[in-house]
Amino acid sequence: MSLHDDIRRLCEQAREAARTLAITPAAAKDAALLAVAAAIETRAPAILAANAADVAAAQAKGLSPAMIDRLTLTPARLAGIAEAVREIVALPDPVGDVIETRLRPNGLKIDKVRTPIGVIGVIYESRPNVTVDTAALCLKAGNATVLRGGGEAFRSNTALAEAFAAGLAEAGLPRDAVKLVPFTDREAVPAMCAQAGLIDLIIPRGGHGLVKTVVEHARMPVIKHYQGICHVYVDAEADTAMAERIVVNAKCSRPSACNAAETVLVDARIAAGFLPELAATLASRRVALRASARALPFTPGATPATPEDFDTEHLDYILNLEVVDGLDGALAHIARHGSGHSEAIVTANDATAERFLDSVDAACVYRNASTRFTDGGEFGFGAELGISTDKLHARGPMGLAELTSYKYRITGTGQVR
Amino acid sequence: MSLHDDIRRLCEQAREAARTLAITPAAAKDAALLAVAAAIETRAPAILAANAADVAAAQAKGLSPAMIDRLTLTPARLAGIAEAVREIVALPDPVGDVIETRLRPNGLKIDKVRTPIGVIGVIYESRPNVTVDTAALCLKAGNATVLRGGGEAFRSNTALAEAFAAGLAEAGLPRDAVKLVPFTDREAVPAMCAQAGLIDLIIPRGGHGLVKTVVEHARMPVIKHYQGICHVYVDAEADTAMAERIVVNAKCSRPSACNAAETVLVDARIAAGFLPELAATLASRRVALRASARALPFTPGATPATPEDFDTEHLDYILNLEVVDGLDGALAHIARHGSGHSEAIVTANDATAERFLDSVDAACVYRNASTRFTDGGEFGFGAELGISTDKLHARGPMGLAELTSYKYRITGTGQVR
Repeated sequence: MSLHDDIRRLCEQAREAARTLAITPAAAKDAALLAVAAAIETRAPAILAANAADVAAAQAKGLSPAMIDRLTLTPARLAGIAEAVREIVALPDPVGDVIETRLRPNGLKIDKVRTPIGVIGVIYESRPNVTVDTAALCLKAGNATVLRGGGEAFRSNTALAEAFAAGLAEAGLPRDAVKLVPFTDREAVPAMCAQAGLIDLIIPRGGHGLVKTVVEHARMPVIKHYQGICHVYVDAEADTAMAERIVVNAKCSRPSACNAAETVLVDARIAAGFLPELAATLASRRVALRASARALPFTPGATPATPEDFDTEHLDYILNLEVVDGLDGALAHIARHGSGHSEAIVTANDATAERFLDSVDAACVYRNASTRFTDGGEFGFGAELGISTDKLHARGPMGLAELTSYKYRITGTGQVR
Repeated sequence: MSLHDDIRRLCEQAREAARTLAITPAAAKDAALLAVAAAIETRAPAILAANAADVAAAQAKGLSPAMIDRLTLTPARLAGIAEAVREIVALPDPVGDVIETRLRPNGLKIDKVRTPIGVIGVIYESRPNVTVDTAALCLKAGNATVLRGGGEAFRSNTALAEAFAAGLAEAGLPRDAVKLVPFTDREAVPAMCAQAGLIDLIIPRGGHGLVKTVVEHARMPVIKHYQGICHVYVDAEADTAMAERIVVNAKCSRPSACNAAETVLVDARIAAGFLPELAATLASRRVALRASARALPFTPGATPATPEDFDTEHLDYILNLEVVDGLDGALAHIARHGSGHSEAIVTANDATAERFLDSVDAACVYRNASTRFTDGGEFGFGAELGISTDKLHARGPMGLAELTSYKYRITGTGQVR
């Protein structure tokens, strides 16, 4: 059997399981997720041992400390993974929700109801917790998953997926509802992408290379969890103390997050007054500043920015600074450099704010708040599978509702047309 | 310049126009659509002359009378096209609708609001009215369109698109909001599919070959308006008079429609009593019957069905007949042969009906009504761009709401995380 055939078979098994899940009541799914959480706890020694082997291999390979930290499971982290599953149990099941009802003049009743999507393929990188989080969220929404994690976490993911499947089986649900692709080969990604008809949706969560490969090969819908080149525009009519607080938070509270700001745009009318102060504050937070030619005169400590800087997701204590001619300048800059993720304006002027919120084409547009709030938890979704930078089906944080499709249930009394 | 470069440039123009449309108020879009309707009427002589040239060329090529009928515009049909634009004006603008509001404990207000998608590519076949209907619906929802119609309607489509652009320009909206691909070459389709980043969504409306080409080449989301292999399942507990009425309507009221039934499944428990009578009625309507081995004994006049028949969208006065073992048999048959379009059950038993409606994975599932109701007009959408047989973003009839995306508008008072 080839890798391609094996992946096909595994997707067929997931598809079959998805049929069962689609008509499994909420209580049975919840009971299964509780069994999964328990199985993770029961199997903690085996999971931690598998993870230790992954970590040892990663260290031998010389992976960076940050990578190794992302990979590492501790008893506390594993307990957190089990706990996250229990939190998903507590969320309401979206399947069967009536989104809208239409009563037609001919007496037909048309209910638009949420359904599972079917089989969701998720391709991700190093963190092993993603294996469980993803499978649990998808299962809650009635979907089977085909998972492909990073090669360096393969042993950990295998142990976690086995615990997941064991929990499902204990609760009487099909083990095949969660399939881990048992190949670390690069070709596994294109092979998954070829399973249109079996996989209904693929979600790549990773770097540029992965997303590009998936978009190139996928013959089914793709929702990209892509980069965040987020801007904060400080308008001339901003409360500058608020603006400073928001910029510092958007950059420094977690620079590695996709909702962190990469560029601050300052209205030319206040550049001379505001930028030097902002630059000093950021420098005191050890943020490296990259200033455009227009910003540099106001930020003597900064490095001159290269054109590439404005298209780079730094994910680090690095911030680009640009001076723009008011709102129109900000809108033009964001249209050119933004990644459609999260964009913020700080202004006290209602009309300026409205025009910014209307005009910026991004998943989340903010007035007087930090871009860091783009997050399923902060939005009140309870949990999220990622943040879509696409515009079809799901945009922004993806919660349970975004993991569903819908169908129309039409009931009549013999109507014909 | 190559075809590919020309198509790229035209998509760039559409993208630029889409930015303007996205922030154009409803009243301005409506005024422009009224100007479009008037321009179509004013330019009727030129449009009809262009159409006459298309029709003459089609006749010279020996196209079928049905094809030529679909291609032909008459003064009455052209008036109907203009009228359809005015009906779209009368529909409410979905853009800016607040889908849901969340007030978070930290004081953030999160509005989920409808936005245009951006640039929508539509690839279709012979009917020239699709050019105007599609462009008008997309424009109402704030989207620019890149249209690629059938080669045989090229002169008609060009004249209609020119009238459309003239109407837009008169009303002060960008002409580039509607672009017709000026190539009849086959390579125009892959070239459109390569414009990811410029075209946000491609909708192929046509046969298997077209859909396959688009899915193969598209690097952006695709929503397929694909085939309808629709079933009517007649349960043992059906009102048989109602069942007969529904079957006759689902097959005969418009066999060329995608929501027409192709196969009737009859519960084995009533096959001997119901099938002979149904077959006689259908035969009297000149429906050619293709019966499976299990159905043939009850339908002496029928032709034996081939296995391919059950996977064929006949789009004609041809109906497949199969006998199944109750609901489970029907569900298994539909899971194997259905195209996810529209499926109906006729039964008086509530539990049986519920299980059918829950289990069948299709855009529209019916109890005691004809599959022919799967239609934007019948659903009360006012107009439709087609019927999606996909599960992501839009499923079933696509109205104005399905031509929108959304974004989150978050307003704060300086919140940081």
